[in-house]
Amino acid sequence: MFIEKIKSEGLSQLSYLVGGGGKAIVIDPRRDCEIYVEKASQLGCRITHIFETHRNEDLVSGAPILSGLTGAKVYHGPNAAAKVQYADTVAEGDSFSTGEVRVDVLETPGHTDDSVSYVLYDQSFGNDAVAVCTGDALFVGDVGRTDFYPERAEEVAGLLFDSLQKLLGLNDHVHVLPAHGAGSVCGDNMANRDFSSVGYERVHNRMLQITDRDEFIAAKLSEHHYQPPYFRLMEQLNLEGGKPVARTLVPPPLDADEFQELSQRSVLVDVRNIAAWLGAHVPGSLALPVGMITSFAGWLLKPESGITLIAENDTQAEESARHLARIGFDEVYGYLALPMSGWAANDRPFESVPAISVESIASRVNEQPENWQLLDVRSQSEVESGMIPGSKHLYVGHVPAELEALSKDKHYTVMCASGARATVAASVLLNNGFKNVDVFMGSMGAWQSAGHSVA
Amino acid sequence: MFIEKIKSEGLSQLSYLVGGGGKAIVIDPRRDCEIYVEKASQLGCRITHIFETHRNEDLVSGAPILSGLTGAKVYHGPNAAAKVQYADTVAEGDSFSTGEVRVDVLETPGHTDDSVSYVLYDQSFGNDAVAVCTGDALFVGDVGRTDFYPERAEEVAGLLFDSLQKLLGLNDHVHVLPAHGAGSVCGDNMANRDFSSVGYERVHNRMLQITDRDEFIAAKLSEHHYQPPYFRLMEQLNLEGGKPVARTLVPPPLDADEFQELSQRSVLVDVRNIAAWLGAHVPGSLALPVGMITSFAGWLLKPESGITLIAENDTQAEESARHLARIGFDEVYGYLALPMSGWAANDRPFESVPAISVESIASRVNEQPENWQLLDVRSQSEVESGMIPGSKHLYVGHVPAELEALSKDKHYTVMCASGARATVAASVLLNNGFKNVDVFMGSMGAWQSAGHSVA
Amino acid sequence: MFIEKIKSEGLSQLSYLVGGGGKAIVIDPRRDCEIYVEKASQLGCRITHIFETHRNEDLVSGAPILSGLTGAKVYHGPNAAAKVQYADTVAEGDSFSTGEVRVDVLETPGHTDDSVSYVLYDQSFGNDAVAVCTGDALFVGDVGRTDFYPERAEEVAGLLFDSLQKLLGLNDHVHVLPAHGAGSVCGDNMANRDFSSVGYERVHNRMLQITDRDEFIAAKLSEHHYQPPYFRLMEQLNLEGGKPVARTLVPPPLDADEFQELSQRSVLVDVRNIAAWLGAHVPGSLALPVGMITSFAGWLLKPESGITLIAENDTQAEESARHLARIGFDEVYGYLALPMSGWAANDRPFESVPAISVESIASRVNEQPENWQLLDVRSQSEVESGMIPGSKHLYVGHVPAELEALSKDKHYTVMCASGARATVAASVLLNNGFKNVDVFMGSMGAWQSAGHSVA
Amino acid sequence: MFIEKIKSEGLSQLSYLVGGGGKAIVIDPRRDCEIYVEKASQLGCRITHIFETHRNEDLVSGAPILSGLTGAKVYHGPNAAAKVQYADTVAEGDSFSTGEVRVDVLETPGHTDDSVSYVLYDQSFGNDAVAVCTGDALFVGDVGRTDFYPERAEEVAGLLFDSLQKLLGLNDHVHVLPAHGAGSVCGDNMANRDFSSVGYERVHNRMLQITDRDEFIAAKLSEHHYQPPYFRLMEQLNLEGGKPVARTLVPPPLDADEFQELSQRSVLVDVRNIAAWLGAHVPGSLALPVGMITSFAGWLLKPESGITLIAENDTQAEESARHLARIGFDEVYGYLALPMSGWAANDRPFESVPAISVESIASRVNEQPENWQLLDVRSQSEVESGMIPGSKHLYVGHVPAELEALSKDKHYTVMCASGARATVAASVLLNNGFKNVDVFMGSMGAWQSAGHSVA
Repeated sequence: MFIEKIKSEGLSQLSYLVGGGGKAIVIDPRRDCEIYVEKASQLGCRITHIFETHRNEDLVSGAPILSGLTGAKVYHGPNAAAKVQYADTVAEGDSFSTGEVRVDVLETPGHTDDSVSYVLYDQSFGNDAVAVCTGDALFVGDVGRTDFYPERAEEVAGLLFDSLQKLLGLNDHVHVLPAHGAGSVCGDNMANRDFSSVGYERVHNRMLQITDRDEFIAAKLSEHHYQPPYFRLMEQLNLEGGKPVARTLVPPPLDADEFQELSQRSVLVDVRNIAAWLGAHVPGSLALPVGMITSFAGWLLKPESGITLIAENDTQAEESARHLARIGFDEVYGYLALPMSGWAANDRPFESVPAISVESIASRVNEQPENWQLLDVRSQSEVESGMIPGSKHLYVGHVPAELEALSKDKHYTVMCASGARATVAASVLLNNGFKNVDVFMGSMGAWQSAGHSVA
Repeated sequence: MFIEKIKSEGLSQLSYLVGGGGKAIVIDPRRDCEIYVEKASQLGCRITHIFETHRNEDLVSGAPILSGLTGAKVYHGPNAAAKVQYADTVAEGDSFSTGEVRVDVLETPGHTDDSVSYVLYDQSFGNDAVAVCTGDALFVGDVGRTDFYPERAEEVAGLLFDSLQKLLGLNDHVHVLPAHGAGSVCGDNMANRDFSSVGYERVHNRMLQITDRDEFIAAKLSEHHYQPPYFRLMEQLNLEGGKPVARTLVPPPLDADEFQELSQRSVLVDVRNIAAWLGAHVPGSLALPVGMITSFAGWLLKPESGITLIAENDTQAEESARHLARIGFDEVYGYLALPMSGWAANDRPFESVPAISVESIASRVNEQPENWQLLDVRSQSEVESGMIPGSKHLYVGHVPAELEALSKDKHYTVMCASGARATVAASVLLNNGFKNVDVFMGSMGAWQSAGHSVA
Repeated sequence: MFIEKIKSEGLSQLSYLVGGGGKAIVIDPRRDCEIYVEKASQLGCRITHIFETHRNEDLVSGAPILSGLTGAKVYHGPNAAAKVQYADTVAEGDSFSTGEVRVDVLETPGHTDDSVSYVLYDQSFGNDAVAVCTGDALFVGDVGRTDFYPERAEEVAGLLFDSLQKLLGLNDHVHVLPAHGAGSVCGDNMANRDFSSVGYERVHNRMLQITDRDEFIAAKLSEHHYQPPYFRLMEQLNLEGGKPVARTLVPPPLDADEFQELSQRSVLVDVRNIAAWLGAHVPGSLALPVGMITSFAGWLLKPESGITLIAENDTQAEESARHLARIGFDEVYGYLALPMSGWAANDRPFESVPAISVESIASRVNEQPENWQLLDVRSQSEVESGMIPGSKHLYVGHVPAELEALSKDKHYTVMCASGARATVAASVLLNNGFKNVDVFMGSMGAWQSAGHSVA
Repeated sequence: MFIEKIKSEGLSQLSYLVGGGGKAIVIDPRRDCEIYVEKASQLGCRITHIFETHRNEDLVSGAPILSGLTGAKVYHGPNAAAKVQYADTVAEGDSFSTGEVRVDVLETPGHTDDSVSYVLYDQSFGNDAVAVCTGDALFVGDVGRTDFYPERAEEVAGLLFDSLQKLLGLNDHVHVLPAHGAGSVCGDNMANRDFSSVGYERVHNRMLQITDRDEFIAAKLSEHHYQPPYFRLMEQLNLEGGKPVARTLVPPPLDADEFQELSQRSVLVDVRNIAAWLGAHVPGSLALPVGMITSFAGWLLKPESGITLIAENDTQAEESARHLARIGFDEVYGYLALPMSGWAANDRPFESVPAISVESIASRVNEQPENWQLLDVRSQSEVESGMIPGSKHLYVGHVPAELEALSKDKHYTVMCASGARATVAASVLLNNGFKNVDVFMGSMGAWQSAGHSVA
């Protein structure tokens, strides 16, 4: 019996291929799902079952596509209100056997109503579980969000508490296999460790130390999470079965004229690193480095938008298109196949944005120049542990929708923890008519390392 | 300007990616056509045009799929009787420019009515051709077949002669880029060299030495070619646009029970090497080593047949499925994931076939045991240069359709040039009720190396 | 913190890359060790420490090579009698920190005197172990061999018992990371599962159920293990630091003449599947399918032997050379780049060996033809659970050294569990002057599936 | 017979694997030469001969390493003054046969004294050449440099003329296989086409139109070429046999502290794109994007320098190390595994350099601010076709050695054709105490596209 973890970087989504004895199952497959078939084949296994722990809101499920490729059925937890059309419904106590593996279903609602966990057994060793796929109920170091049903906030937090108790009923030695790792938008406090066990979580998971149900509910209600607008689209796609990928994922290289033509009818997304965007970029382009796509494209792009990339090379363009496709953005028209120097040498316009050092920021904070505003785009939970005096908070994901909270007459220096999200936000401002914008390079990291105080 | 040759082994089909200056064209793309997009992207080019030299009868064209992936238009030669539905028609003198490349059309009928050649120019250097894609008109060392319109045999051989003169009108330095290389079913005498030029072919191509039109026609009419039955299906698919590949190409591994169940409703194709099939094989399986699939599957399998493989491992199964898909066989259900020892250890039946040495054959030929027949399954052109005394000829591809020419009461030793095709033919015999069949290992190669005489 | 398992198929050897926070350690690296550097780099980590759990006797350690590539130091357990020259010695209680990982040393002798285990901690979570690298002390489902010091048999079995108690002192949730998985020559009863935990092993590991020290010692003393002769060489190399691989691992393809010339001064090893060897093989070749190389090359080949392969293709030849290099056989001269039909067509000799079915064996067992002997080459532990009446036992690994126990006048049918090892043994007999040898295809598996009785 | 071109990007170096019939030869192998063995093996060939067309001055030859891997002998042209130690000497008329290939030697001195060409024949077709490896004698669209023996300038230019006449004696249809393509430092005017033939070059190669020997000599003497200082080292290494690559080519990732420590004793090379360097870079780092390494590292780095990289990711770091190794720089200690925002967030210093637009430059040129100097770092041949009024010329490669021609009190705006080499040069100035430096983004390309005039 083997367990292979397939990790989708950026999303920090974890899926699993579990098998042995010639048969395998897949848990929570992603959309670009040939990898499961290939790995199973290398391990001498045929995929016979596909299980989903819950309806994902942050990515397009690959379950219906994988089902088409393999003939395996898809199984999903119960949800009377929204039956997943491509899946059979499983319920507490259901059990499946294939090859060396047995899978038992535990209903573990809370994060969503249809959340289930799958307990895995090695059939040669009887009734002692070896691992459990916990979906978004239990993570390494954290537990799932319960903010998706705001009108039932207390109820679902309580449901999650009950579900966690059920999971804690498993033996200490049971491996915990969650659906996300550190870096996911599905949790803030996950450990940067990609394996754990029931026993370790029992002792070290912050949220599992709360043994009182009401206290747990209160703790969950005090949390702050963001819901990017594309979550709604994901939920819809994952109810109906996301559209299969009909086209190749390598976007074509474009010359200056082709790029300019496409820029009239698509969003320009610059996936190079942020220093490059600051140094020189195509006016009107959104700064969204390839590693940040899955976190922020859902905030900044409209589902129906066509996208034209500015990328270093074909590899980066391809990776960007793959990340975009995983969250439902399929219309990538191509990428500018010129460095900024080549673009400029074709007499095309470029712009730069100043990268401001911590010393300069310290002077500005001290002097408070007229009309200047330090804009902090970190998350609510980050700013709660301290802000630079005089700075204003607006979460990076909220910038596009809350521009009216800012004034185009002001000079904004944007900051975050390091300068990366600040650059993303700065690009949004510049694309919306703001003229005087720069970026605090190093941001809170540099501020604190340099010994400045926070408020 | 670059020319990248993409070769499909087995079929010995040659396609080309030609480009420069950010644009590329593809000539005669095969069905698994992601490779063109990937290579073009690596070379910084966008595919803007797809050209076909003629309607292929030996493989499924990838042009309509590649067109869907890239948005590039497909161009095809003129044929009033059978307009290719997915392509625009080109005619003599048409010219296309993209990036550094210019393409001029030469009509070069004969092999088929719609055969055209594409003359390539480096646009930075003006009106002097650098290469020509000759399709199936001109090969390295040979010229195209003209046996596809039997009722117009002389006419089309004459057309080919005229087409070749047109090609010989190009400068000596022009590179010749044909659609097939040595090993293809589209020609017998191609050189085992995968590049040439007009000047070299002018002097060294056997058929270009014939300068008299009538003599050329006579020579073509005296040739003997085989047309596997699947050619008809290919022609049809390549008129309408072959079905896209809807499923993954890695067949699933099967255990003994799954395999046995599928064997009831599919053809068993053993793609292992021939020595393995002789040593032990599943009764009822066809011996068709992976390297021989493209040559003989079209003779031995029905287009609508589902196929279950016996393969060494997942890599060999995948390669086999890819070869089968290129010639239109998509229904591969899986492969037996057990070696023959494991199969037998499950108490499943196996059979062996004796490999007979040249010494034994010499004795038998000498003694002519009663009821024994040496069966030579080589092609007509091969047997014309000599057979072993007393042997009977039946081309391997014709065995399934001409079984009535043989007697089930006889003991057949099957031979070819080495023993490979003989094993394929032996498997056909055994699957059709013949009981007493063995294989001459080494066949004509061993016979002649050992100094025996031929008749 | 991440743990990446790197598995060497064939050997079933498990090594680990453990890291996080920009630093990584490697435990028990294999000889072809670029993979650790590449994986570490992909995970953003620099390798800072290399740990060995014990001196391997079944493969060449890659630790000194990896140390040269990375500059990382190598650490090894204490052994006054045989200090590993390329390593620093660690002792109980030593502790190492790097990036997110802490490593504590537990001395766990028994399998060897220098056996240590490495307990792993996630530094962000304090003093609770997350995993333990147990080397050859504790496997999934079994424990280590204790037969390497025959004169101290009881002592070292007792040492292992004590070491296991020490490991059982860890929490149930601690992941167990052993140095071998199922299929290794280092243990007979390992589970076919490649992950476990202290808690699961505590309950399900057969040997951990024995709580009495004397009983445990008795159980270990009653075990039967084989020591291939190459173990001595491995131990020597792993004391001094194995020779680095000086040459590429892709053996060159050879034509018939080159192969024949090399066959004069090297051992011919046929790495094709066993059915192929039975069907047709080069006389004098050893049947050793690629998947069986690591298990049996050490029994059948002399360390100083040059090797020439018979392989399906370059991929199989390369894989074979890699497997051979891992156990110290570097002199691979090339592979015959011809199928057996091509070999025979060059008028070179070939031989076949009959594959005998279970029905024929049943008849023979019943009739006991004069001079016929069924030879069972399975291991001692396998034959203890039953043999076919009248069969004689000689372990496949012992055949080369104990030929005098057999008679060249007899007709031997060789058997094992399926026919694979039987074919290996048959090839040894034929290469040593035995004339009348065949193979029971299906062997004990078929015998029992067919309902025949064992004695 | 096949010809496989292996191209080393950056260097634009072309090497060839030529073979058929189980044997292959390699012409001008590069240092990372496993690729030849692997490709040969895939094509079923054993490498039997290695040929060098001349002693390379721009890269480290892989011939001695490849010889060690394969056992093939190395052959090199005659040079009494400097016998290549690892090679046998070939002379006019020498001929080699292997498999399907025959190789004849033509002495074609001029570029170097030991320059030879290798004429290739398909042995099945007799005495008509199919291709010729011309080394640095004849390129596509240009001919070799003759500036390596300044004291014999006229003589060697005349020798090259004679050599070219010898090559033109070959048939028009002969394929021309040069040792470099467009982008190489070995020629300025090569066509951007990577294949040609004697016939095409006869008509279209600019230099082959000069039929008068004296006129040809005069033309060669009027050319201007640059010799980076590392050429001397390459010549030395390629005489003795370059040191084998002893260490892996994936440099380890470094954290801020490790990087800072290494920066004390190594050169910092920033291989990210130039916009990124302009946007934010580590003070003291040299801007040398990965694609420019082979062109400029030899000018800017000392052979004995240790190098620490700033790279986007492990892939870019690995590619950079590979490019560096090809030209003899092996001491790459690692790369900074932090983006500039992360670096700054650790409170480490960064700097930016302004990217100046064409409009600003036009104003400056017009106004000629006091103390401002436009510095043009293009090559001599580029500036000969026009400069911006008031600009000063200093070739980028000469900047490190001719700093005294500039004044640290001035404000320099650096330009080239696009801004790429300008950024490289700007980084050299800043690392040498210049304080007021910026870069003209778009440079001459933008200037002319915008319609400004040149002088």
